[in-house]
Parts: sequence; structure tokens; C-alpha cells
Amino acid sequence: MAFSERTTRLKSSLIREILAAAQRPGMMSFAGGLPAEAMLPAVNWADMPVGMGQYGTSEGEPELREALAHEARALGIPCQASQVLVLSGSQQALDLSAKLYIDKGTQVLLEAPTYLAALQAFQFFGADCLAVRMEQDGPNLQALRTLLEQHQPAFIYLIPTFQNPSGLRYSEAKRDAVAALLDEFGVTLIEDEPYRELSFDGGLATPIVGRLNTASWIYTGTVSKTLLPGLRVGYLIASPDLFPHLLRLKQSADLHTSRVGQWQVMQWLGTEKLQHHLDELRSYYRVRRDAFQAALHTHFADLADWRMPEGGLFFWLKLKQPLDTRTLLEPALAANVAFMPGEPFFPEPDLHHGHLRLNFSHVGPEQLDEGLKRLAAVVRQAQALQAA
Amino acid sequence: MAFSERTTRLKSSLIREILAAAQRPGMMSFAGGLPAEAMLPAVNWADMPVGMGQYGTSEGEPELREALAHEARALGIPCQASQVLVLSGSQQALDLSAKLYIDKGTQVLLEAPTYLAALQAFQFFGADCLAVRMEQDGPNLQALRTLLEQHQPAFIYLIPTFQNPSGLRYSEAKRDAVAALLDEFGVTLIEDEPYRELSFDGGLATPIVGRLNTASWIYTGTVSKTLLPGLRVGYLIASPDLFPHLLRLKQSADLHTSRVGQWQVMQWLGTEKLQHHLDELRSYYRVRRDAFQAALHTHFADLADWRMPEGGLFFWLKLKQPLDTRTLLEPALAANVAFMPGEPFFPEPDLHHGHLRLNFSHVGPEQLDEGLKRLAAVVRQAQALQAA
Repeated sequence: MAFSERTTRLKSSLIREILAAAQRPGMMSFAGGLPAEAMLPAVNWADMPVGMGQYGTSEGEPELREALAHEARALGIPCQASQVLVLSGSQQALDLSAKLYIDKGTQVLLEAPTYLAALQAFQFFGADCLAVRMEQDGPNLQALRTLLEQHQPAFIYLIPTFQNPSGLRYSEAKRDAVAALLDEFGVTLIEDEPYRELSFDGGLATPIVGRLNTASWIYTGTVSKTLLPGLRVGYLIASPDLFPHLLRLKQSADLHTSRVGQWQVMQWLGTEKLQHHLDELRSYYRVRRDAFQAALHTHFADLADWRMPEGGLFFWLKLKQPLDTRTLLEPALAANVAFMPGEPFFPEPDLHHGHLRLNFSHVGPEQLDEGLKRLAAVVRQAQALQAA
Repeated sequence: MAFSERTTRLKSSLIREILAAAQRPGMMSFAGGLPAEAMLPAVNWADMPVGMGQYGTSEGEPELREALAHEARALGIPCQASQVLVLSGSQQALDLSAKLYIDKGTQVLLEAPTYLAALQAFQFFGADCLAVRMEQDGPNLQALRTLLEQHQPAFIYLIPTFQNPSGLRYSEAKRDAVAALLDEFGVTLIEDEPYRELSFDGGLATPIVGRLNTASWIYTGTVSKTLLPGLRVGYLIASPDLFPHLLRLKQSADLHTSRVGQWQVMQWLGTEKLQHHLDELRSYYRVRRDAFQAALHTHFADLADWRMPEGGLFFWLKLKQPLDTRTLLEPALAANVAFMPGEPFFPEPDLHHGHLRLNFSHVGPEQLDEGLKRLAAVVRQAQALQAA
């Protein structure tokens, strides 16, 4: 059996195993990033034309592309509908970008920590992932400049708004500075924004791609965190030099995105109905986040440091006494608690022990306290063993 | 701008341009492979649970996997639901297979002609595509043996039932012989069967993968030709040694397939309603095929040779006086007739001039005669010019 060379980098997925375990009855799961079941909106299909069952174009439905371009322009992204490519979820933007840019050994820049499915997709294609040191308001600019001076990365991949896993949001100043540096060095920006609408305290800033003058860019988003992930509808918007390549890659990957899903998204985009749903969603998640913060304070105040996230779906804890949090998984799952170890979110996991990613949207208030109590006990026991 | 090495092989798509031109008002299109609009079944969404909007598993819906495995076993494919991977259309099987197997220079075997989107996907990843010489009942067995003796291909890609573009269907004897050869040489089979259900004269044969004893295999199918292509639901079934790799590749590509589409397919699979729809579909297409055959006889009898297809959606014409049929496109489109030149269906287009692929399902009877008359005139004019 002769597989491709890249298949040697196809990792057995720890995440897959954790999420599978998290489905077990009785499990209290802080592991996934699932929207709350209770907040999935009821949708209406009765008016969908039969013609939506026919093949469509690789670009996506014209009306949907127009609506997405309209929204992007309102965020300061200079674009036309012709630059919008509808995707089968925004994960597909990572796959297409990897195909477009990455050969074995290709250097790419990313945040550390970063979205682990991006890291895996880029590494699978052979990328040498260089990590930018992060501060509370975005990357350390001197570190970024040095990396840009010393390397010629194919692109930089950033999640500037309520990052998964860290919850970080870049400041206005950092956004401007990053855009200026990428223009200066001519490095393509891939900006990933699944969580923009999940802002709980009013804090926001416009995307970085809209601040670029000359660098190429890909901006990607999804309806999975705002409407229904099961539709699998995401999108990318690209600078005109990149768009034709991405379109061909999309066609080769799956011809086009489900028109049924696209049609449903068109019924919501730009409507008051969606604004009302988002308001409810933000309120619901804000309550859960605040309850989580309080419960964390009760059980983890002496064990970890964290910042309350202004948006997104996760708390990112740093243990005061670092240990490899992957070793906590087995005892946690045995106690019916699932969480996500922090190590796989870094290109060099073994240099970054001691973080936990905890989702706050899924576990209800009735189980929250018990779940965090059990998780804290698992951490305490492991640290006692380590100290012994 | 530094793209990946493979991007140099990302072809500007002639097909994309033809299909775009085919959408123009007034165009009579024999180019695409679209189901007839009139035969798209009306579907009901009222009973879909809200929970289908939540994230799902990369494998696909359990009930759908069970139903697909059940159908496959009825075709003689020994498999369990655990070997079924639901895909975002069967095109995705080609992308995942390419990722799994193909590095630059990897040799793969395929039919000549073959499905051109498969050829493009494999070549994009760097495959060296070796073509097996075809006869009316399947590959020339001596040629296949010689290729297997002289090369170590990563896999062989076959479309044994109503092949696109040629319409060929392998005989029972050829299916057995191909399976025995692949077992003997230990070469993985990728068997693509989008057209199995579109059989007009009762001719069928069970898949080749079910005849293998030791070789690894991937079998892929879709509901795009039987139900609704706009749902983008296909599937693959793989031998157990390959499945875990393909599952991880699926997860990395787009997390999972639209659950909305999967749910709709579940409402049809295994039902009398679907059998009734397929009966109607076959009758409808049979009438169109027979009308096409008659019209071809009127306009192309002196220009080309062909066999009436027993299934699928295409006639495959061989011009008696070969010329590069790509040169016919411009005058044909100018006469408001679209067709697919045969050259791109071969790994070495310039060695295979003189074929046309004509879809018979799309153009209605009122335009058929005029369309083929105009196309024949274009061929005649080009041949006159060539002779001059």
C-alpha cells in the first residue's frame, strides 16, 4: 500500500476521540464548540423552489453572493459579489488555501495558540508553521516584524476577533499595524472570522483585510455560529488576484455548495429576523459566560489564570502549575467531564503545556458547578501526583 | 506571489467556460450532464427535526450509512455501515482519493477516455495518468496486464457502468477478469458509479469491488443523478484498511456533509416512492435517448460513428474524419449550440482528436432536430476547411 507522502502527516485525531467521548450519555462536555441546542432557530422550507434541487454554479447563488458582499462592504472590506465564493463551511477555506499555497516545507505564519483544525490542515499539506507571539491585544509587533524579515511565508493566518481558543480580540491599533506590516512585506493575509457576531460586551473592530492597501487577502466566515451549522454554508471573499484560483479549487473539491443550504441562508441574511435571533443568541450566551466565570472563580481561582472572553464560545485557562493537560483527559472522561487540552493548539505542543480550552455554551447551569468541580479535582490530583 | 507547485497544474477550465456559455438564453446545450428540470422530484421538508441544524459527525448520519450499506450489500459489496462515508457529492471522493494517494509523479491507471473532472483532480495533485485501452465490453485485458506488470500504480480508477463520456458498460467476464488482475497485482480499485440506476434496456452487472478478494477498494456513488444534485450528497464505501484515512481527510476538508441534504436523502432511500421516481426517470430518459438516436441518424450518419448508450446521459461520437473538436466550439456557440469536445477526456488530448460528447437529456424534442442540424453543419464546414 503506497499512500502519498502527505498521508504520513495525517494525524490520528485526538479531537475526534474527545468529541466522540463527549457524546456519551451523562458526559458533561466543555470540549466542543457546538451552538446551544435550545438556540437553533426553527426554519421554514415551504417556499423553496424545486429548481434549487438542480446543479448550481461553483461560485454560489448570485443573490447570496450579493448579500455577503453587501455585508462585507459594511465592515469596510472593499469587494464585489464577484469576489465571493460560497463554501461548504468555512473549514473548506482552509483546505482550498492549503492547496493553493502549501508544498512540503512551505513556511506559513500563524498565531500561537491557533485554531487547531487550521494547524492540522496546513501541516497535512506539509507547511512549516511559524508562530507569532501573542499579547492581549494582538501579536507582538516586533516579533512579527522579525519573522517577516527573516522568512518569506506564503501567508499569515489570523483570527483577530474572539479567537478560538484564546478568546483574544485585536485592538484597532494592532489591526492597523498588522495591515501595514503585511503591505510592507507583501504577505498574503488569511483572516478567519467565525465568531464576529458573538460579541457580548459591545467590543468590535473592523476586519484587517479592509485595512490592506496592496497585500493579497482571503477573508472567511460562516453561518455555523449564527444560524445553523448543519447547513454547512460558509464563504470566502478574496482579492481579485486570488479569486480565479480559489474558484477552480472549489470546483475540483465538490463542484458547488448545497443549494438547499444556500437558499435557507438567503432567507435570513439582511433580515430583521436574523438581527432578532442574534440579539437573543448574544443574551443567552452572555448569561452562560457570566455563570461560567462565576463557577470558574469558585473552582479554579487557585489553579489557573484566565481572562473573561468578550465574545466567542471559549474560556482559555492557563494552569498556575503547568503540566501536560493531555494527561488529564483519561481521568476527566472517567469522571464524565470532557474538555479540550491546550497543547494541540500550538505548532509545538510540547513547548506549551498547561492550557485548557473550556466551552461555556453547551453545559447547562444545572450541571455547570458539578462539572467544573470534578475537572478541578482531576487537575488537583494530577498536580499532587506530579509533586510527589 | 508564491503559490504551491501543484497550482501550476490548475487548469483554466474549458468546461467551465462551455457550461457558462450553455446558460445563455437561446442556447441549445448538449454540453452538460444535468438531469432534466422537469424530472426533479418535489420534496417535503416539513417533518425535518430542528436538530438537523446542529453540527453532525464527519462519517455522516447513522441511519443514512446503514441504508447505503444495505443497498451496497444487495449489489454484492461486502460491507458494514462503518465503512460508509457520506460525502458532499461524489466529486469529493476524487479529491479525498487524490490527497490520500497522489504525490508529484505518482502513477495511476485510468480508462481512456475517462471522466474529465477525475482526470483534472488527479493531474492537479501531480499524478502521471496511464491510460488503459478500452474495448466495447471493458478494458483490453492484455493491455491492462502489461501496464500492471510494468508499473506500480497507486490505484486504478474505473467507471464500469454507463461510463462518462463513452457510455460503455463492462461485461460480466471483464469485471471478473479485472478483479482477478487487481488482486494478483495488489492494486487498489476506485470504482465510480453515478449512473448505475439510469439503465434503459435492463442491462446491468454488479460492481467490481464486490468481486475482489484481497485488493483494497473505494466504491463511490451519488444521489445527483437519481434524486437532486442540488443537495450535494454522495458517498463512498471503502475497504476497512482505507476507511480511517478517508474519514480524517473528510473531516479536514469540510467537517461533515450538510445534514439537511442527508436528511432529505434518508426520506427516499429504500422507499417505493424512490422506485417509482426512478421508473419514471428511466422512461423519460429512454424516450429522449431514442429520439436523439433518430435525430443523430438523420444528421450525423455520414459524419460520425457511435453506439447507442444503454444507460447514463451521453452519446459519444467518433468523427469519420478526425479533427480537433475544440476548434468546433467557437462556431458551434456562435450558432447557439453547445457540446463537449472529446479531447479533454483523455490524458493526452492531442493524441485523441475527433470525439464529441453529446448529452441527450437536456434539450427537448422541439429543439433537438434543429440543434443537431446546426452542429452537423459546423462539423461539415470545419472538415471542408480542413480539406481545402
